[in-house]
Amino acid sequence: MTGMLIGVGLGPGDPDLMTLRAARVIGAAEVVAYPTLPGTDSFARSIAADLIRPDADEIVIEVPMTKAREPAQAAYEVGAERIAAALEAGRDVAVLCEGDPFFYGSFMYLHSRLAERFPVTVIPGITSVSAATAGALRPLVARNEVLTVLPGPIDSAMLASKVEQAEAVVIMKVGRHLSRIRDVLDQLGLAEQAIYVERATLDAERILPLAEAPDPAPYFSLILVTKGSDPWL
Amino acid sequence: MTGMLIGVGLGPGDPDLMTLRAARVIGAAEVVAYPTLPGTDSFARSIAADLIRPDADEIVIEVPMTKAREPAQAAYEVGAERIAAALEAGRDVAVLCEGDPFFYGSFMYLHSRLAERFPVTVIPGITSVSAATAGALRPLVARNEVLTVLPGPIDSAMLASKVEQAEAVVIMKVGRHLSRIRDVLDQLGLAEQAIYVERATLDAERILPLAEAPDPAPYFSLILVTKGSDPWL
Repeated sequence: MTGMLIGVGLGPGDPDLMTLRAARVIGAAEVVAYPTLPGTDSFARSIAADLIRPDADEIVIEVPMTKAREPAQAAYEVGAERIAAALEAGRDVAVLCEGDPFFYGSFMYLHSRLAERFPVTVIPGITSVSAATAGALRPLVARNEVLTVLPGPIDSAMLASKVEQAEAVVIMKVGRHLSRIRDVLDQLGLAEQAIYVERATLDAERILPLAEAPDPAPYFSLILVTKGSDPWL
Repeated sequence: MTGMLIGVGLGPGDPDLMTLRAARVIGAAEVVAYPTLPGTDSFARSIAADLIRPDADEIVIEVPMTKAREPAQAAYEVGAERIAAALEAGRDVAVLCEGDPFFYGSFMYLHSRLAERFPVTVIPGITSVSAATAGALRPLVARNEVLTVLPGPIDSAMLASKVEQAEAVVIMKVGRHLSRIRDVLDQLGLAEQAIYVERATLDAERILPLAEAPDPAPYFSLILVTKGSDPWL
């Protein structure tokens, strides 16, 4: 009997936004695994810290942040094999995932390497999108509206085209792309109603009109653009 | 001092996928409000049932399901005024919302009527999109992929155009539009990899290849289309 690979969505950062199931699974886990940047504390682990058993084995996956993909992928390769060893020994492994595991989550790099060899369960989590709209008190989509979610790094022409074609847009991973994104929204006449959200639900959360956003922005920031003026009435 | 309007996201249906905060807020609420179809039990209330205090006042908003918008909007108008009366009396009101309050949620119809008059807090919830991808074990978006979420009722030409332009697509509120949507995906060569998810996380959950989906489908069903073959490796 092999163990179960469990991708545990932890939500956007405030531990209070974990699901009841995620909290229970982490509290029971004998083995937890999570990624971290070398030399820093793991954000995922910090969300779950109060629930992790003192005697739990922790598999730390140090993922370098480089422009080339290979070093990060090599790190996930090593991490996946350490997780596989625990699973083969019949132990369940709870992988701690910020947000939702299958929504721009690093869990996918482990899932793709392990899903054919081991049973898998995924516990969904609150996305930063839901957290940001709640924090900003900004309804996202209603009725027959279309939502597009896009990563900040995509090129400006594609960004402009996507933004024009949807009623609501969320731009993720803003970071150093902030001023370029702001220019695109400005040209579309949408910059004024855009909202910048940084580190949603954490103590350091900032919610600002886009015009007042810091440039460059941190990686964990997003921009909300909604076009409707109460279309749901 | 007026009370606080609290939009409480309950997640997709399994009470275990409520957040810790949602569970705590409901357990403490003296007044809860929720929509229901006339003559049926409220789905939102059923998710929270075990947590609602026996002595809580319950504001039931009976929303007729008609093609015309006016009857439903009139019902929200009446419901909003009943909630307003409680808020004006200084009582907090927890509005029970399936999924996430600001993601195709009926809470928006109350929020739009009350947000200028009363303080508001929104607790985000797990969306049916996250629940469906977790249940189907289907990663949604990674890296620089674009996600589009669209409602099933939009017309076929727009549907085809949106599906072509995104790496991942979720089609919500499938219902009686199922066969038309299937035809569109078929013409794009995407029907085979599409997944049908009905009542995600409930006992009656069904996850099937699109070809095997019931027609017409129930309202609470969606279709997942992902195009990548492990783009994250």
